[in-house]
Amino acid sequence: MTTGAHKHRVVIIGGGFGGIAAIEQLKGTGVDITIIDRRNHHLFQPLLYQVATTSLSPSEIAWPIRMLVRHRPEVTTVLGNVTGIDKTAQLVELEDGARIAYDSLIIATGAAHAYFGHDEWAPYAPGLKTLEDATAMRRRLLLAFEAAERQTDPEKRKALLTFAIIGAGPTGVELAGAVIELARLTLRDDFRTIHPEEARVVLIEAGPRVLLNFRESLSEYTKSALERLGVEVHLGDAVTNITADSVAYGDKVLRAGTIVWAAGVLASPAAKWLEVEADRAGRIKVNPDLTVPGYPNIYAIGDTVSVLGPNGKPVPGIGDAAKQGGRQAGRAIEAQLAGKPVPPFRYRHLGDIATIGRSAAVIDFGWVQLTGWVGWWVWGLAHIYFLIGLKNRISVAVSWMWIYLTGHRSARLITWGEAGGARQTPLAPKDMAKPPDPDPGAA
Amino acid sequence: MTTGAHKHRVVIIGGGFGGIAAIEQLKGTGVDITIIDRRNHHLFQPLLYQVATTSLSPSEIAWPIRMLVRHRPEVTTVLGNVTGIDKTAQLVELEDGARIAYDSLIIATGAAHAYFGHDEWAPYAPGLKTLEDATAMRRRLLLAFEAAERQTDPEKRKALLTFAIIGAGPTGVELAGAVIELARLTLRDDFRTIHPEEARVVLIEAGPRVLLNFRESLSEYTKSALERLGVEVHLGDAVTNITADSVAYGDKVLRAGTIVWAAGVLASPAAKWLEVEADRAGRIKVNPDLTVPGYPNIYAIGDTVSVLGPNGKPVPGIGDAAKQGGRQAGRAIEAQLAGKPVPPFRYRHLGDIATIGRSAAVIDFGWVQLTGWVGWWVWGLAHIYFLIGLKNRISVAVSWMWIYLTGHRSARLITWGEAGGARQTPLAPKDMAKPPDPDPGAA
Repeated sequence: MTTGAHKHRVVIIGGGFGGIAAIEQLKGTGVDITIIDRRNHHLFQPLLYQVATTSLSPSEIAWPIRMLVRHRPEVTTVLGNVTGIDKTAQLVELEDGARIAYDSLIIATGAAHAYFGHDEWAPYAPGLKTLEDATAMRRRLLLAFEAAERQTDPEKRKALLTFAIIGAGPTGVELAGAVIELARLTLRDDFRTIHPEEARVVLIEAGPRVLLNFRESLSEYTKSALERLGVEVHLGDAVTNITADSVAYGDKVLRAGTIVWAAGVLASPAAKWLEVEADRAGRIKVNPDLTVPGYPNIYAIGDTVSVLGPNGKPVPGIGDAAKQGGRQAGRAIEAQLAGKPVPPFRYRHLGDIATIGRSAAVIDFGWVQLTGWVGWWVWGLAHIYFLIGLKNRISVAVSWMWIYLTGHRSARLITWGEAGGARQTPLAPKDMAKPPDPDPGAA
Repeated sequence: MTTGAHKHRVVIIGGGFGGIAAIEQLKGTGVDITIIDRRNHHLFQPLLYQVATTSLSPSEIAWPIRMLVRHRPEVTTVLGNVTGIDKTAQLVELEDGARIAYDSLIIATGAAHAYFGHDEWAPYAPGLKTLEDATAMRRRLLLAFEAAERQTDPEKRKALLTFAIIGAGPTGVELAGAVIELARLTLRDDFRTIHPEEARVVLIEAGPRVLLNFRESLSEYTKSALERLGVEVHLGDAVTNITADSVAYGDKVLRAGTIVWAAGVLASPAAKWLEVEADRAGRIKVNPDLTVPGYPNIYAIGDTVSVLGPNGKPVPGIGDAAKQGGRQAGRAIEAQLAGKPVPPFRYRHLGDIATIGRSAAVIDFGWVQLTGWVGWWVWGLAHIYFLIGLKNRISVAVSWMWIYLTGHRSARLITWGEAGGARQTPLAPKDMAKPPDPDPGAA
């Protein structure tokens, strides 16, 4: 497939787990690589909830993509926003008008959160996908306590100290545990008129149990562990409405000053760029070798695709599946260049994992299940191992040790969008409810 | 001055060096204290330039104010924006309508940057006072390299790689050294089409030398040291105009993609709140005991006041002077309550200090001057000592050691204002030039 005299050009869109794994897999194959991302950094999303809940700093879980590939001169990093793909001319189109030619293309563009047709809920119940989402959520959480401290009306104060988390998958479970511990441990001595133990954290799940994709015994354990921490778990009712300060589900309307969305995802617009078939969540239905139907030189991997694993079940939208997809795409390109047959993608599920606060976790390796503090330590060591670079490993280990020993979290900062933002009103009750500000980053 | 049966109420506006020192000084005196700040955090401003230049994370140099006073039950922390002071009723007025009564008031509200009557320059040449200023400056610096990497016109690329820093006081000197090292050391291997050593850093100062407040030999040393690093130092010409991509000074017009303002400060509006006399920079002219003329129970300290030191020279606008002012105010309130005479403020100048890159600093203790790496180590150890808490000391020490050993800076993140911001255009040439977005934090 090499055209003309140039080296084979691989373009990768997306510098998440999948894209970075593909670059690693292609090391030494002699191809030219261009990695395009609209962010300058690779993000370790599994720990994003810890930035949102003040345990970690953004820079502890993010790395500049061009730093990760600095010793790979064949890799060019492009900070740019993809707007389309010209499949005939084999060009990736960027918003700024640039066109980047490919011989092979790997699409690893991930997913965003989705509101099941209720985009009007987005301002009131933000989700968690980017560093900005995390620092905005951190600000909302901390401002809720600040506003409650100054609120004299008991009903309003109660609402300000109520945190509703919608969706009890791993992100919802992890956020619920972290928020209740933030309230009851970290902020214990810090307020004068509110008592942080008054804080209510309500986890709302439409399905019959928390962690629906885990085995049932672990769901049961997780629910009990959350309840021991003080989280109220409500199962079996879908959310029917969200306003600035309330969530409706079943026959209840919960008044809550802070509402968090952890319920649904929508794939990136890659299917639209390619004009190929997608499922209800926008995911491209790829071939078993992860190529896009009709385009043997276009691979799509990770959260933006729908594919079945060897057990006949869909490959889950988790970081490890994206990594395996990236490695598969790299191996497939190598095989194609060598004229060898392309091996099919054999997803291997390594396990399910979720933490519950700072002293318990559930892990299912298939052959063994871990819970409690043993689970937590395995979770913690595994996550430190998967971080990139010694510096961030040291940094995260120190931060966790510190929280473990003292309960103090080191990143309790309320920061605003733009320079000058905080020169104005730091706290107004409407901050609790107002929709996010119009996008300042947009052109 | 105690009114009625309540304890004496001290209200402190501003949780910077001065405000926090006053709280410490008042420990054990039996007064009630309320600390009001529009931010939730105390900021270690001397290291803010290191956040702007990717060496440190925001949370490494900032602490929640209410965490700092958590074991002082007599201290109440209020996150609020002061809009006025009712001197007759002795009330501090907040933007949200709240009124906070005081018996003694300490005003420690600091200063912002000022453009000498040219506020129209502000969007093009941002300054550095808050964490948001720092992360916005970090974004501008990193985006300049990203834009240059993709710019094919050599003239435009040259402009994108030109960084103009206006003002050669300690902040300007420290920024200039950090930016040139960021370009030449940290980013060395990371780009494919630009050569970071092409980056020009031009430090423009209207006065006859850099570090005008330091002794002349140290200014000379600093200029040479900066030039050895590659910084171009231009002295003796004031800036006459700033546009989106140029700075005019003397008979020159420098095309520069990034322009930074480190030249002037303007005191907080405290003089207006009090309707008292201020100097040209907006600073309250306080009595020798730091009380505001006419108001023996109102103290004003730090960057927001103008007062002469024992040597007849103005007390400088540095953190240590604010700390000494805070301690003075605390002691004075204690003396007043005990019916003792209030001692006058005796400012003691401990020294002048500035770093030049990561391996040199100038320090003037009066009785001894340090330069080079000895200066740097003394500077580094002193700053780690003055940080609050073991966690941040460990964290900053590890970050510095890491940069020293590897050249890699751990906080090279381009982050945008609000959640969702970066979902849009990450890079457009206009980002280099466009004015900051309208204030998203404003009500």
